[in-house]
Amino acid sequence: MIVTALTEMFGLDHPIVLGPMGGVAGGRLAAAVSNAGGLGMVGGGYGDPAWLKTELALAQAQASRPWGAGLITWAIGDGILELVLQFQPHAVMLSFGDPAPYAARIKAAGCKLICQVQDVAGAVQAREAGADLIVAQGTEGGGHGGARATLPLVPAVVDAVGSVPVVAAGGIADGRGIAAALMLGAQGALLGTRFYATSEALGHDQAKQRIVGAQGNQTQRTRVFDIVRGYDWPNGYTGRALHNEFMARWSGREESLAQAADVETPAFWAAAGDGDYDTAMVWAGEVVDLIHEVEDAGSLVKRMGAQAEAQLAIGSGLLRKP
Amino acid sequence: MIVTALTEMFGLDHPIVLGPMGGVAGGRLAAAVSNAGGLGMVGGGYGDPAWLKTELALAQAQASRPWGAGLITWAIGDGILELVLQFQPHAVMLSFGDPAPYAARIKAAGCKLICQVQDVAGAVQAREAGADLIVAQGTEGGGHGGARATLPLVPAVVDAVGSVPVVAAGGIADGRGIAAALMLGAQGALLGTRFYATSEALGHDQAKQRIVGAQGNQTQRTRVFDIVRGYDWPNGYTGRALHNEFMARWSGREESLAQAADVETPAFWAAAGDGDYDTAMVWAGEVVDLIHEVEDAGSLVKRMGAQAEAQLAIGSGLLRKP
Repeated sequence: MIVTALTEMFGLDHPIVLGPMGGVAGGRLAAAVSNAGGLGMVGGGYGDPAWLKTELALAQAQASRPWGAGLITWAIGDGILELVLQFQPHAVMLSFGDPAPYAARIKAAGCKLICQVQDVAGAVQAREAGADLIVAQGTEGGGHGGARATLPLVPAVVDAVGSVPVVAAGGIADGRGIAAALMLGAQGALLGTRFYATSEALGHDQAKQRIVGAQGNQTQRTRVFDIVRGYDWPNGYTGRALHNEFMARWSGREESLAQAADVETPAFWAAAGDGDYDTAMVWAGEVVDLIHEVEDAGSLVKRMGAQAEAQLAIGSGLLRKP
Repeated sequence: MIVTALTEMFGLDHPIVLGPMGGVAGGRLAAAVSNAGGLGMVGGGYGDPAWLKTELALAQAQASRPWGAGLITWAIGDGILELVLQFQPHAVMLSFGDPAPYAARIKAAGCKLICQVQDVAGAVQAREAGADLIVAQGTEGGGHGGARATLPLVPAVVDAVGSVPVVAAGGIADGRGIAAALMLGAQGALLGTRFYATSEALGHDQAKQRIVGAQGNQTQRTRVFDIVRGYDWPNGYTGRALHNEFMARWSGREESLAQAADVETPAFWAAAGDGDYDTAMVWAGEVVDLIHEVEDAGSLVKRMGAQAEAQLAIGSGLLRKP
């Protein structure tokens, strides 16, 4: 096994964190990842109370080891954080916004505070808010994120935050990426897209098959899916999704899309309900190149952990006395 | 030392390749990198014969170990490849375009053919052209490049090209990044921006100081510097440079810039000659966060190589029997 500050913080077998993908990382997936020795995270997204109650209860019931939940910081509504904390997660992860207003309540509940950031300034803000763990997320990742790439971002964040442990996110889908994250000074890796293509993920089967079939140059960061859904994301954040017809039609015409919401928004939600991914989005990162099948999440955690261990052993095997 | 397919191919002490930065990586820098145990590369850029003769002669005279030269594939003019080969480099690196028309001549001269690619399709094309080494270059790198990020691109290229050794480029500026590249399955790392900030680089001192002072969120991919210089880059390639006034003025107004070339182009070249980097560009990658001083290139190679070795040793030290 691999021992890092991350694995010691939560008693993990593998330095692997499930990305809390909104609506995709439900309680069953989170529990499967935790029970296999990673850190499972429920994806609370925009904070729908009914969804949260169902999925957090599932995670609490099924996980026999530490697990957590993630929320979109700028979208946290009244009472949502309290609702999450009632289910006694071991960690709460806040992404996209200033964590300071929520930090004290999370830590007072005995939870570890995980803050996901997209640049060095955000990492410093997270450290000052009292983050126990900082996730440095690169732009190659799926779903919402920023503009900096993981490989140069992670060591810059490590250098900026001193003793706070850092986890790398964005562009990682196998043990090679996990081992690379450790070399950069991170204490582990957070993976989203790779876990979307698991049997336990809540996503539609068609979405999972699109991930399996896609290539890395078929993803793009965009605002069109936020606009059509009426989500007012702060500046600087876009979402990476697989190319599809809707994205092709509206990219570069975002203002027209906003004006056409009366027609486009109901049509979009109908398509999403039907699993029509020519219109609805499949959030996915550039790592789709490395994803060849839908797998069981527990087996995946163990296989990737073993591959990371093998890579580290191979790495030291490259060393020779001069 | 670290032994990989790259170090064995050229007898290197460190799995480090100098990025052949046009006009910046001259013969003195290339020789310094090679003599310190990396692979130095002269940056042939658009192929100015007088510049090439001067710098290739310097490399040939000063390098006591293998060195190479890089060219922009789509810009190779009549006789330029022959000119380069007269100086007997050990490797020729082709970037940005189909290498097939030049592969046979390079290999017939006893040179290793290095092909730099920006996506998986380019890697397959390079393999089919007979590349001895493929550089997978991520979008976070400085200067010209594509859209894919290094961390997910490198393992995808490794998987696609079979036995051809791969080198990672883009987002690497220290031993942590080099060790991470090895974990991804690469045989080494190519670094550009980090070597720009060396005493041997041909860049203006003011440019080097801007790199040292800049942060990673102060770079951007752009076409404006190609447009003002009249370089007709093929679709899909942009250049990453430090933010400056010229970029701010013309980004999003590329067509207007092209129309204003009569005025803007002479003013630009005058600024470039004067070291006025509010107008002229400083090509640089997101790794500027990790660059804190202008260093001697030979010391830098040795220090980064030693740090990569230390990281690999630390990595295997994380392993425990379960």
